[in-house]
Amino acid sequence: MSKKIYTFDSTLRDGMQGEGIAFSVEDKLKIVRALDALGIDFIEAGNPASNPKDLEFFRRLQSETQRHAKLCAFGSTRRKNILPEEDSNVKSLMEAGTPAVSIFGKCWDLHVLKVINTTPEENLAMIESTLAYMKRNGKYVVFDAEHFFDGYKANPGYAMEALEAAAAGGADVLCLCDTNGGTYPTDIYEITGQVVKGFPDVQVGIHCHNDTGMAVAQTMFAVDAGAAQVQGTFIGYGERCGNANLSTIIPDLELKRGYDVLGEENLKRLTETARRIADISNIWLPSGAPYVGSSAFAHKGGMHIDGVKKIRESFEHVDPQKVGNSRRFLMSEVSGKATLIKKIQKVEPSVTVKDPVVAELVGKLKQLEFEGYQFEAAEQSFELVIRRLLGKHKKYFELEYFKIIGEQPLQEQEYPSSAIIKVQVDGQSRITGAEGDGPVHALDLALRGALKGFYPALETMRLADYKVRVLESSATTAAKVRVLIESTDGKHTWNTVGVSTDIIEASFLALTDSIEYKLTLDESN
Amino acid sequence: MSKKIYTFDSTLRDGMQGEGIAFSVEDKLKIVRALDALGIDFIEAGNPASNPKDLEFFRRLQSETQRHAKLCAFGSTRRKNILPEEDSNVKSLMEAGTPAVSIFGKCWDLHVLKVINTTPEENLAMIESTLAYMKRNGKYVVFDAEHFFDGYKANPGYAMEALEAAAAGGADVLCLCDTNGGTYPTDIYEITGQVVKGFPDVQVGIHCHNDTGMAVAQTMFAVDAGAAQVQGTFIGYGERCGNANLSTIIPDLELKRGYDVLGEENLKRLTETARRIADISNIWLPSGAPYVGSSAFAHKGGMHIDGVKKIRESFEHVDPQKVGNSRRFLMSEVSGKATLIKKIQKVEPSVTVKDPVVAELVGKLKQLEFEGYQFEAAEQSFELVIRRLLGKHKKYFELEYFKIIGEQPLQEQEYPSSAIIKVQVDGQSRITGAEGDGPVHALDLALRGALKGFYPALETMRLADYKVRVLESSATTAAKVRVLIESTDGKHTWNTVGVSTDIIEASFLALTDSIEYKLTLDESN
Repeated sequence: MSKKIYTFDSTLRDGMQGEGIAFSVEDKLKIVRALDALGIDFIEAGNPASNPKDLEFFRRLQSETQRHAKLCAFGSTRRKNILPEEDSNVKSLMEAGTPAVSIFGKCWDLHVLKVINTTPEENLAMIESTLAYMKRNGKYVVFDAEHFFDGYKANPGYAMEALEAAAAGGADVLCLCDTNGGTYPTDIYEITGQVVKGFPDVQVGIHCHNDTGMAVAQTMFAVDAGAAQVQGTFIGYGERCGNANLSTIIPDLELKRGYDVLGEENLKRLTETARRIADISNIWLPSGAPYVGSSAFAHKGGMHIDGVKKIRESFEHVDPQKVGNSRRFLMSEVSGKATLIKKIQKVEPSVTVKDPVVAELVGKLKQLEFEGYQFEAAEQSFELVIRRLLGKHKKYFELEYFKIIGEQPLQEQEYPSSAIIKVQVDGQSRITGAEGDGPVHALDLALRGALKGFYPALETMRLADYKVRVLESSATTAAKVRVLIESTDGKHTWNTVGVSTDIIEASFLALTDSIEYKLTLDESN
Repeated sequence: MSKKIYTFDSTLRDGMQGEGIAFSVEDKLKIVRALDALGIDFIEAGNPASNPKDLEFFRRLQSETQRHAKLCAFGSTRRKNILPEEDSNVKSLMEAGTPAVSIFGKCWDLHVLKVINTTPEENLAMIESTLAYMKRNGKYVVFDAEHFFDGYKANPGYAMEALEAAAAGGADVLCLCDTNGGTYPTDIYEITGQVVKGFPDVQVGIHCHNDTGMAVAQTMFAVDAGAAQVQGTFIGYGERCGNANLSTIIPDLELKRGYDVLGEENLKRLTETARRIADISNIWLPSGAPYVGSSAFAHKGGMHIDGVKKIRESFEHVDPQKVGNSRRFLMSEVSGKATLIKKIQKVEPSVTVKDPVVAELVGKLKQLEFEGYQFEAAEQSFELVIRRLLGKHKKYFELEYFKIIGEQPLQEQEYPSSAIIKVQVDGQSRITGAEGDGPVHALDLALRGALKGFYPALETMRLADYKVRVLESSATTAAKVRVLIESTDGKHTWNTVGVSTDIIEASFLALTDSIEYKLTLDESN
């Protein structure tokens, strides 16, 4: 029976301290639901005292019930020389109406004297009386021991006295905070061990920041030393370099150390949850995010790919399915034939390694990549390259011409750019015009407008992402650009690429591939 | 006298395995220069055998000399059952002409049998003979012990035999690779310690990947166990979740553990180097990157800011200046002003903090950043913002209009795009036309063509760099783009920015700023 480790997510509180992070009340409700559905134990939803919007949010929350998670409101100990019930922060903490509260208090005597300007004794009284008041009111109480590690190094006696005051106040959890994020993992291990030994009857928690790039390791080491609650934010959002990243820590605890955290079934929803929270936050999930990133199990090097196919363990530290992610093989000039074969056989199963078409394709690929093409993020354009080479490609339309007109300042029309396009399908021509926000936008609308008449299926298709990368950028405004387009029809998603010195042509090429792929897809289904 | 730790950067080799990472030969040369200028000890520049583009790059490199860094080419041991001199990979490694080489070999018997399909004995012979050949040819040889940690756990005896073969071959460094990225830091510490004990006369290196979010900690622990060479990529680029991030590890080693790495002076250029490399890679440096990110020392919470102002250590784990970064207060207008004052006084020395224009500028800046402007890489555009606000800006020309015409396929003209522009200077109008490779290129030529008549000094001006970044890219072809332009007149270099949903307008804005700055510059000199 492995030890249970409790998860405490602060995305909506400490995560909000991150630069560029801002959530609407609706966003916050969605995030609470996502975290609860995953099986997170505690959700720290905000600081009602410092933020009136949070108070409204807590009111909204009271009309929802969580499947599993305990909601938590965050606040500080009472101000000096008053009773808890007289303190406005404490009052709004109560108003939040959450079953749990987290109260932070000072553990570094330097701060007591220089920042909140009171006596060491009064600070201890502030901690004990505030927690006791919360317990009297039936709350589950987490004590956030601010600057605990730095405080302990400066004055271990006083840091421990602060925890004793919290325990005397009835704290359910003593959470040790590495507020500055600079404590070395072995020091975290050592000091956490002392606390666990000193407080056998109270659960110990850990709260780390990533200022040395080691927040995950710091957290893991605290657990190894006996901590049973891990605080963090789900994708590592947070002030400065962010908080410990729960989407990394959870699988590390469960798959690397065998602790009981979410359990096998919930863990399979880790990736979808991380991507959902990134979407809600409107922040791009780094493709390299451990376990949950789109590249976390992507293989590019030819030799690696060859290896992975021979024995899975040879290049993967865990099975991607355990965290709901999947393995990907990326195309690139350093990929081996082994990968190409796999891709070719998707189109024509009869092709073998010795088939001359394989060498031909390798050559074609090298030439295209030399021209600035890159297929690792445009697998469907690559499939079209293969289809054309195998004579398995149907041209769905011919471009007769397009013209772009751009104008500044705007005359009558609403948009600065317009496009006229003439296409031919089975000898039948159609001209369409469109205006747009820039020439590419106008051309996109005109092209799809012209083709919808011939291919109604295109109605369901839309662009999901559009990226421009300037190659050899020192060639300045005549430089080559690579355009990457992601498209979707609701059921599938595909990626295509175009390269040219003219951004309009590059976009047109990627757009054409996208449309042709969609039509190929429909035929093969 | 603290222990020297050697840095080995693989941004241009293992970093290239990262999804979305692609460097032109020019990019690579710039990165080599940036790393060398910082004082990196070894620069692994590529894999000449697997990539013809790398071989061309190595030829280019031979005409440059490094201030400090040793260049290194990467490759594998010879194939089975042949002599090193008969092996094509070994040949291209020699052709690269670098003073150092890194040779990877198998240390996990499972791989020997299942992946390269040879006998354990032949694999050992492959390692020893390949290294011996390199040593005979005067190379500094790093042995990359692939899968060392997984191999050691499976069969410690064979893993150590592989290192013995490398040592017998004359390896200068035995670099232990956690190829799958899944080894727990304490295991890294334990196993590295065994190797250091077993090979007292050979330097030991460490190469980690971030699959568990602990690559930095794994590397630190290996050094604590006696490793003296740290391999990584400068901003953590790399396959899957990336390689150990040198821009984090270097300050951790130097500031947290007191090792001798770059030295105090070089360390101060860490941040600028990281930002430069991110820029060359056209990949945004995460704002939360430890030590070097723009948020790494940014304080948002009111209480935190109050604390930092009372005692620095209270909320910073190191002094930002030691790594060339700086403290930022995101919510404090006052401090925001303090940082702007310097820039304002450059234009108008008489302005003081209390001057209302300062608050006005803070507001303007917030609004522009909200619109997607970003002045870190466009200081001269920011100076123009200040000049306009202070009424110290002269408008050198008025745009009457421009029109862009783009056409595919090409009719008579050589280029797909042409532009007509009409500008007015001191009531005098001029119309010019130009054709170009894409609409931006055409517009650039037309605008400068029209103005040269009025301002001959523009003859000496040319664009040195042009970058496009799509903001909110999920808005697809109507997404906002940020255009960054670097211009030079041979004597000075300046950077300007433009933002719009229309790439042509964004480019026009950046171009206009660039021209106006050049003319301002000439007047003030």
